[in-house]
Amino acid sequence: MKHLLLIGIGPGNPRQITLEAIDSLNRADVFFVLDKGAAKDDLLRLRKELLERHVTRPYRLVQVEDPQRDAAAADYVGAVEDWHRQRAALYGRLLHDELAEGQCGAFLLWGEPTLYDSTLRILERVAQPAFSLEVIPGISSVQALAAAHRIALNRIGEPLHILPGRRLADESGIDNVVVMLDGQCAFAELDDPHLHIYWGAYLGTADELLIEGPLMQVKAQILAQREQARARKGWIMDTYLLRRR
Amino acid sequence: MKHLLLIGIGPGNPRQITLEAIDSLNRADVFFVLDKGAAKDDLLRLRKELLERHVTRPYRLVQVEDPQRDAAAADYVGAVEDWHRQRAALYGRLLHDELAEGQCGAFLLWGEPTLYDSTLRILERVAQPAFSLEVIPGISSVQALAAAHRIALNRIGEPLHILPGRRLADESGIDNVVVMLDGQCAFAELDDPHLHIYWGAYLGTADELLIEGPLMQVKAQILAQREQARARKGWIMDTYLLRRR
Ligand SMILES: C[S@@+](CC[C@H](N)C(=O)[O-])C[C@H]1O[C@@H](n2cnc3c(N)ncnc32)[C@H](O)[C@@H]1O
Ligand SMILES: C[S@@+](CC[C@H](N)C(=O)[O-])C[C@H]1O[C@@H](n2cnc3c(N)ncnc32)[C@H](O)[C@@H]1O
Repeated sequence: MKHLLLIGIGPGNPRQITLEAIDSLNRADVFFVLDKGAAKDDLLRLRKELLERHVTRPYRLVQVEDPQRDAAAADYVGAVEDWHRQRAALYGRLLHDELAEGQCGAFLLWGEPTLYDSTLRILERVAQPAFSLEVIPGISSVQALAAAHRIALNRIGEPLHILPGRRLADESGIDNVVVMLDGQCAFAELDDPHLHIYWGAYLGTADELLIEGPLMQVKAQILAQREQARARKGWIMDTYLLRRR
Repeated sequence: MKHLLLIGIGPGNPRQITLEAIDSLNRADVFFVLDKGAAKDDLLRLRKELLERHVTRPYRLVQVEDPQRDAAAADYVGAVEDWHRQRAALYGRLLHDELAEGQCGAFLLWGEPTLYDSTLRILERVAQPAFSLEVIPGISSVQALAAAHRIALNRIGEPLHILPGRRLADESGIDNVVVMLDGQCAFAELDDPHLHIYWGAYLGTADELLIEGPLMQVKAQILAQREQARARKGWIMDTYLLRRR
């Protein structure tokens, strides 16, 4: 049997990795790194540093360009489906070609492996070769956001909603919402004067940016800083909490 | 100035602590342990083991019984308010009496410090003495649940809701909900045949229990195992994800 580890490595701060994740790094024979887009060189560097720092046995790194999703497709769910099918074929090939029977492979996943990360779902579609699977939790960017702003994610006795940017407009009566994957800046479309925003970019890294305040007052500042940072680094990852006062 | 660290130590597995948390343990002069209820001896033991294992400098442990909330009160929010006021007075006294100027104190918090944990909110109410504060994220029981069941917390492009048991009945059309703090087994009141449950208790510990299946099929089994385990250990902590198929 082949064995696979999905290891959460935290959102960017190399100290935000667990002992369990470090133990797991030392069980793997092969590390699969599948990044894409503008951030991939920076993300790869962080992963390589973690391996150099913590792994005490020989290993192999297999680096592959992940297929890009068709961002222009009108049918979002359909496009994601297509993209997942392509990736499942790729992952199946990798497991077949790069991992021997009895070996252990690992994916180093950004943040928490079960939160807005498709690796687990892609692997569910891989019918061949047979493999067993383990998930190792990691600190997510949501937690890094709350820690950096020193705020509780939930209010007393109330729900917390976490959603991708494209679902923010559907959220009727935003009370307490964390938004991820929001390249379109959905927050900028809101004009409720009772909303407070806690925003963070590159959380846990040396480039960390934090802005907090009434949405209507700080919206323009976030948009400007976000654009400036993205132009400078070539990519941005940001997350925010919206809370009704 | 006095300094306070709120350190997340994970949900029970002593390897699910981050390097950042370990660094932080080694910055504290005093550790405050405020537990209550039947689980407190077990929780205290885990904390002491973490300190013995990871702290390489002298420290002091201050152990205090946290006031209990009036669980019978009809006005839930009011009772929580009262309880928080009492705890703020207690925490203020502790910071005043047990921490010298320039010293660093730490709270070791179960799971993730910003998720359904009131310490941060209590400390916001402490006006005197003045102190600065830092939050160190930890793996939450929600993440341990998803990892143990090897499931993604969210479905593609969809929101994730996290809420306390007493809010489950309000959740119209449960799609994808994680429930915590559910001593009343709110899931047992649901009879939607399309719901699937992923349940876990004592996650990350040697006593870990996992049950998964269509809610209507496994409900009785969860109730029975839960009651049995609670009777045996004297306490239980459980969390679950409900997902509509
Ligand atoms: C594909 S999702 C992966 C999330 C990841 N599994 C986690 O738990 O943080 C990518 C999104 O996570 C958020 N994100 C990840 N890392 C971040 C960071 N260091 N700072 C801010 N946001 C981040 C952003 O919203 C980004 O669009
Ligand atoms: C006061 S809340 C604290 C949550 C904690 N901050 C976290 O991030 O997991 C306590 C609730 O967390 C959940 N919980 C905490 N530890 C758990 C564990 N080891 N196994 C299952 N559930 C747990 C249960 O739902 C419990 O009622």
